[in-house]
Amino acid sequence: MNDELRITPRSTDFGAWYNDVIMRAELADYSPVRGCMVIRPRGYRIWELMQGALDEMFRETGHENAYFPLFIPEGFLAREAEHVEGFAPQTAVVTRGGAKELEEPLVVRPTSETIIYAMLSKWIQSYRDLPVLLNQWANVVRWEMRTRLFLRTTEFLWQEGHTAHATSQEAEEETLLILDVYRRFMEEWMAMPPVTGPKTESEKFAGAVRTYACEAMMQDNKALQAGTSHFLGQNFAKAFGTQFQTADGKLDYVWSSSWGVSTRLVGGLIMTHSDDVGLVCPPRLAPVQAAIVPIWKSDAEKSTVLESAHRLVQALAAADVRVKLDDREGLKPGAKYYEWEGRGVPVRLEVGPRDVQQEQAMVARRTGGKAPVPAGGIADGVQTALTEIQDGLLEAARRRREEYTVRGVTKDQLIELMEGAGGFAYGGFCGAQACEDGVQQATKATIRVLPDDEFRSDPAPSRCVWCDKKATAEAVWARAY
Amino acid sequence: MNDELRITPRSTDFGAWYNDVIMRAELADYSPVRGCMVIRPRGYRIWELMQGALDEMFRETGHENAYFPLFIPEGFLAREAEHVEGFAPQTAVVTRGGAKELEEPLVVRPTSETIIYAMLSKWIQSYRDLPVLLNQWANVVRWEMRTRLFLRTTEFLWQEGHTAHATSQEAEEETLLILDVYRRFMEEWMAMPPVTGPKTESEKFAGAVRTYACEAMMQDNKALQAGTSHFLGQNFAKAFGTQFQTADGKLDYVWSSSWGVSTRLVGGLIMTHSDDVGLVCPPRLAPVQAAIVPIWKSDAEKSTVLESAHRLVQALAAADVRVKLDDREGLKPGAKYYEWEGRGVPVRLEVGPRDVQQEQAMVARRTGGKAPVPAGGIADGVQTALTEIQDGLLEAARRRREEYTVRGVTKDQLIELMEGAGGFAYGGFCGAQACEDGVQQATKATIRVLPDDEFRSDPAPSRCVWCDKKATAEAVWARAY
Repeated sequence: MNDELRITPRSTDFGAWYNDVIMRAELADYSPVRGCMVIRPRGYRIWELMQGALDEMFRETGHENAYFPLFIPEGFLAREAEHVEGFAPQTAVVTRGGAKELEEPLVVRPTSETIIYAMLSKWIQSYRDLPVLLNQWANVVRWEMRTRLFLRTTEFLWQEGHTAHATSQEAEEETLLILDVYRRFMEEWMAMPPVTGPKTESEKFAGAVRTYACEAMMQDNKALQAGTSHFLGQNFAKAFGTQFQTADGKLDYVWSSSWGVSTRLVGGLIMTHSDDVGLVCPPRLAPVQAAIVPIWKSDAEKSTVLESAHRLVQALAAADVRVKLDDREGLKPGAKYYEWEGRGVPVRLEVGPRDVQQEQAMVARRTGGKAPVPAGGIADGVQTALTEIQDGLLEAARRRREEYTVRGVTKDQLIELMEGAGGFAYGGFCGAQACEDGVQQATKATIRVLPDDEFRSDPAPSRCVWCDKKATAEAVWARAY
Repeated sequence: MNDELRITPRSTDFGAWYNDVIMRAELADYSPVRGCMVIRPRGYRIWELMQGALDEMFRETGHENAYFPLFIPEGFLAREAEHVEGFAPQTAVVTRGGAKELEEPLVVRPTSETIIYAMLSKWIQSYRDLPVLLNQWANVVRWEMRTRLFLRTTEFLWQEGHTAHATSQEAEEETLLILDVYRRFMEEWMAMPPVTGPKTESEKFAGAVRTYACEAMMQDNKALQAGTSHFLGQNFAKAFGTQFQTADGKLDYVWSSSWGVSTRLVGGLIMTHSDDVGLVCPPRLAPVQAAIVPIWKSDAEKSTVLESAHRLVQALAAADVRVKLDDREGLKPGAKYYEWEGRGVPVRLEVGPRDVQQEQAMVARRTGGKAPVPAGGIADGVQTALTEIQDGLLEAARRRREEYTVRGVTKDQLIELMEGAGGFAYGGFCGAQACEDGVQQATKATIRVLPDDEFRSDPAPSRCVWCDKKATAEAVWARAY
């Protein structure tokens, strides 16, 4: 049935294409619950591989996992003024428990700062207890009006890091350390190169002093906010009385950070690499990295071909390649190719009678190209292909991003660009909310970040794109998910 | 602070002892949210190690992970009559979302059969789509009146497996396969040997045809239901219309199983092995398997001792031992020993100046005994110790269980036993609900399982313990958590 699912071309309707790719690859499905999705095994495995890589990076930088309650007393949210303003309209609230009305309703966590700071107040006494470097893998709920598979769902899965430090500097260093972890993960694992930098005041996290973000360009030239890292100052510490005794015997509030990435990343992966045939998955995050399709006509051929295919499986599995032999009966090789392509498997191995005779397999890459590889060197051959595909995807994404990046835009260019091809527009910004609002109303574009050093234009823009007053920073404008 | 936490002896108050062990080892803490706990890093790491081992066993037996929504429309629960009766009184219900009253309230999942069968109805068409072998790692919520850390909390973490098959026999085989996976995991990883078998009608899962359980004996001789595996027949398939076309072209409902273990297992681990000094953790699930405590007086000693300790760390880490060097300043070795003992670390290595000179480390086992091990053979020495401790804990738990098992009990013995030392009482059972109720009222004991072959008495009891009529099965009675 799924073989017959047609994929809308990207050029026709990018949104329909995105959904078609997901359905064809069986990554996820709509559920009967408003705004909630089901993550199917092929999609969930990608998330698990992401989790494994990120978890290792968090551990290497000294973080420990813990688990805090799903429910938060409604009053907790209200303790930090900006926080409650940002999240209250989006909450799901439990008012009945054990068949009784609750005295104090419980909010299903939209994020866990409040419950975590309530606990840290109990655990932290002295500077010796600092830093606290926690991470939590969890589900969170934010009531959304318009939802999209992976990109925006009422319930989503994420990790949320929460750290507490003795000084402001340490907390801000942590915030930037994690921003860099996210950037490296997106580049090295997802082959999705983001632009990084701080957000403007109007785009920061509700309760943060400063928010830093990774913004990646999708194939429709819109930006995806793929990860955020927040310097929270002492805001939550003050709201929850999280104090510690300093080395010289005084009392101070802890300084903190929080940071997160979510299942939204799976959506980013899809929109960065996939094509009109279906999913393209970077090899390091591919649930199946190599699919072997045996080809036979007679029973005699079948037995020698399968024997050879099994040896390939063994050689690849021994080299830690995630390999799958597709020996289903009653399905032609062409139909199998089609299916594995739609699922985004990076490498397909074809083994027919002639390949057996010549002691080889045909190695076809999802990103194009097909060549014979000697059976004796199959592990090396496939690993080389996987590495080249991974590197090629990153290179292509970087090239695309540069292609649709315009620097030093004028007001007219910005308007024209956002009405046309879209992309990332770099220009001067005076810092005024009025100019941010003006651009957004005229173009639907927002400032994604004030770009970090490595992304900045040289020379720096001197005037604000919108009001032509003196620029205080460079900004990256784009329409966004 | 934590060093001064006193642990109530088991003999004085088992419940207080249990909480003290958890607090001293910093495994978990009470939260400000009614009935919900916080799992701290030292406790969460044990759960992660459990997850890793179980996940591997599920994968080896062909299961795939997926993720289904946290929320379930209230009407879904009601479709299976026994299911709703069992779970409705325990639900937490979301009635407000995005600041509006919901038209249909959403139940926070107490278990996911209903939402999963709603999806399976969409995905399964033909016998070729079967079996479906799914597992989900998730949080679930059951409103509890009396809660205990890890053992019974309103929110808990678990895995829930859900499988659909073409025949009744296949589904029941799956149910038993998983029961055996659970048993092996509990024995081989937790060193906690359970008794297995089916539950009686009155104790089965709400919606199941038959429930099988693993019941382990805790150190207070009460039983802990540590894992359950349910044969669901076609109950949920009929409630949700999950039909498939059979190989001969007819329509039938799928046959299914579901099964789960939860963070309750951490409680079982604690109550099986720990002592009045604190946690005892089986080495295979210990976050830190070996803690190294360096001992020095002068600065010169410090430098040679630390150099030697670092070499030990390298050798142990290279052998995949989870090792931690405790080089904190300003804390005496004795205080460190005390802390690592309370945390349940299986092996402690002491390295002082004389040990450096003699090229050795003192290896002290949490379960008793201390001996020098040559530095050159430290990895082998520690691994041998870890294996022996793991085996010894299983052996001790098995011996304890046998010691407090009484077979062929009479009515009077059963009453006397349950008023006294407790334990597992094996006796004949006629199958009547009245006898189950009678025993429970008189002794607070319930039938934990009708034991599987390997646990049954020889000769089998011929009369019912309670009514003296003909026995139809042997039963295991115990008071339970």
